[in-house]
Amino acid sequence: MHQALEDIKVQVIAAWHNLHAQNPLVQCITNQVASNYAANVLLACGASPAMIDNPFEAESFTKISQALSINLGTPTSEQMQAMQISARTAQQHQIPWVLDPVGYSAILPWRRDMTHELLQYMPSVIRGNASEISTLAGQHSENKGVDSTLNSKEVYQYAKTLLTHSSCIAISGSSDFILAHDLKGVIQVNGGSALQTKVTASGCALGALIAAYCAVAPISIATIAAHVHFAIAGHLAAQQYQTIGSFNVAFLDHLHHMNSEKIEQYIDIQYV
Amino acid sequence: MHQALEDIKVQVIAAWHNLHAQNPLVQCITNQVASNYAANVLLACGASPAMIDNPFEAESFTKISQALSINLGTPTSEQMQAMQISARTAQQHQIPWVLDPVGYSAILPWRRDMTHELLQYMPSVIRGNASEISTLAGQHSENKGVDSTLNSKEVYQYAKTLLTHSSCIAISGSSDFILAHDLKGVIQVNGGSALQTKVTASGCALGALIAAYCAVAPISIATIAAHVHFAIAGHLAAQQYQTIGSFNVAFLDHLHHMNSEKIEQYIDIQYV
Amino acid sequence: MHQALEDIKVQVIAAWHNLHAQNPLVQCITNQVASNYAANVLLACGASPAMIDNPFEAESFTKISQALSINLGTPTSEQMQAMQISARTAQQHQIPWVLDPVGYSAILPWRRDMTHELLQYMPSVIRGNASEISTLAGQHSENKGVDSTLNSKEVYQYAKTLLTHSSCIAISGSSDFILAHDLKGVIQVNGGSALQTKVTASGCALGALIAAYCAVAPISIATIAAHVHFAIAGHLAAQQYQTIGSFNVAFLDHLHHMNSEKIEQYIDIQYV
Repeated sequence: MHQALEDIKVQVIAAWHNLHAQNPLVQCITNQVASNYAANVLLACGASPAMIDNPFEAESFTKISQALSINLGTPTSEQMQAMQISARTAQQHQIPWVLDPVGYSAILPWRRDMTHELLQYMPSVIRGNASEISTLAGQHSENKGVDSTLNSKEVYQYAKTLLTHSSCIAISGSSDFILAHDLKGVIQVNGGSALQTKVTASGCALGALIAAYCAVAPISIATIAAHVHFAIAGHLAAQQYQTIGSFNVAFLDHLHHMNSEKIEQYIDIQYV
Repeated sequence: MHQALEDIKVQVIAAWHNLHAQNPLVQCITNQVASNYAANVLLACGASPAMIDNPFEAESFTKISQALSINLGTPTSEQMQAMQISARTAQQHQIPWVLDPVGYSAILPWRRDMTHELLQYMPSVIRGNASEISTLAGQHSENKGVDSTLNSKEVYQYAKTLLTHSSCIAISGSSDFILAHDLKGVIQVNGGSALQTKVTASGCALGALIAAYCAVAPISIATIAAHVHFAIAGHLAAQQYQTIGSFNVAFLDHLHHMNSEKIEQYIDIQYV
Repeated sequence: MHQALEDIKVQVIAAWHNLHAQNPLVQCITNQVASNYAANVLLACGASPAMIDNPFEAESFTKISQALSINLGTPTSEQMQAMQISARTAQQHQIPWVLDPVGYSAILPWRRDMTHELLQYMPSVIRGNASEISTLAGQHSENKGVDSTLNSKEVYQYAKTLLTHSSCIAISGSSDFILAHDLKGVIQVNGGSALQTKVTASGCALGALIAAYCAVAPISIATIAAHVHFAIAGHLAAQQYQTIGSFNVAFLDHLHHMNSEKIEQYIDIQYV
């Protein structure tokens, strides 16, 4: 293993330890499909989630949060207001925040326009599937609703242009790709299971977990750590179950019972 | 088995194959209780759900969807607007759509009035429990909140009048009853488990699944196929577990691991 | 066991029987994280939940409900209107209702002000974690988002002042504490598992279950019964599983398969 990768591995394990030791408060403004699941994922991984998403409390709550996750899955007008207030507050108070532009496409103009507004508040991380990131990077692509029609591998080279808006870009897929100025190259995270795409809001919960890690580690390490945490839990759960009801229960179990030995044993990252 | 029933069985199996092969995009405007569960049910069964429910994106999204599911469980003002826009768009573009008038009753006037407005857009299928369908058909009945106080068996003969509003009417219960102009009579679907009524949003998820099947099969076959898919998974799950936590996990597993052999073996339909 | 405690035990078992026999309709105005989970918990325990939370149907629906649960977790403007209407209607029609002031604190002024407005409608029960109840009782405390930073044991003596607003106060924690005018002292409910705090919306679902029991038993007994039901199910689930995915499935199973023998065997209550 390239020394830099060894460094990253050590830092990922440290991030995992920090997450449990510090139990950071993470504000999530997320969609109705994801809210319960994302909260359980954060609790399983050691963070303290709070789904405060109204515009009347957004500013004061973001100020006391250690990280913020904004997800555009099923927005309401009130949530859209809260997103702007919280993103602005996060930027002003240097609170790390993650933008997940679910369904970003010409077909969904309301969230597309909101995504552009939110970009001015400089998200710490932009994460999405291949279709979303590709479209956001100005490439022509087609989404199928909120699911991707592209492979993450085909897209990561276009994502570089998005680093003007954010310190880190993450593209999830059968392998995940992570770009950041402070990385020597594009990091590829392997592992996980195709069954994860069969559990709704799995990507949304990953976005929230990235935010949680950002509260306790440098942005690029935090983003890698969240993807590694998910990939290992997905891998271990898929070894036990191939049907999505049982798989999902086991996935939460493995997210919960992660430890440094498992990370060391199963982490599978490389430079592209 | 009556030949026509044999035909239906063959078409139900074909519908199941089509659902997996075509992975249709299904827009769901549903309630807060059902959204996560309905999305997981659709993913388990092979469809691609998207819970786009705001009025600002409803029209453009319905246009690209293969089917639409509208559920009146816990509406908001914005969702109510989206429902009208999407139903109208679906009718204009001949996209099949399912109406689930949850809690339809005099006690809940807002959704009652909206249901009447939505009926003008000619839903492909109206589905509900016995109380809802009976009340909608002009019979006096009492709901207990969103649960039925009637048996599906007592109600199906009244449902015929609703065929002026929709090509297909489905009443769920211990047995399900399905009426359509292109069926020789009322189809009764047996199977399932009483435990399904103990899992919240199970009927709502069934409505979404009917919509998914409507994207890949004729309306009446699609409606039967969705009920059969649910009944078999419920039956198999109840053979394993009698408590609702474990039952529900197994139910999702069996929805996911359906196949043509199981359908052939367990399908239990008859003309009344 | 002190005779009075024996009396309470008998009444708790009777309340459990009544809940199953009467299957009361419980209106829940709750948060997006809790809605599915709270509905499943009520179904598992024998009640009939309905999450009617819009201001246009709130009054007529509360009138036909046997109990009402109001939870301030992730309010919207429409839900806030519905809360006021339903609380007022409940008071007018002597329908028992439970207030769960999630996140009550100076940091979240919108819900703090709404909580004060709702208090004028005299909730039958106010329940919350130690931070919420302590702050509501005028003690200085700090919340960590929606999680408590205090122990329930440190707080119960302050909660007495809240009995001017409600007949019963319940503080959940590693042990739960329940205060009511018709109890000889503060009741402490032991049992449960620390894993319950790792399942999101577990406290919210408990609030809904208290409301359900209030439909079939005297307020203070109902509140104790709900806590005992949760504590036993949590205890039994934790004996089987230590990871939160599996724990939560088992928790629902044990909520569902409660019976009078288990209550008799595992109930652990005492006067402080």
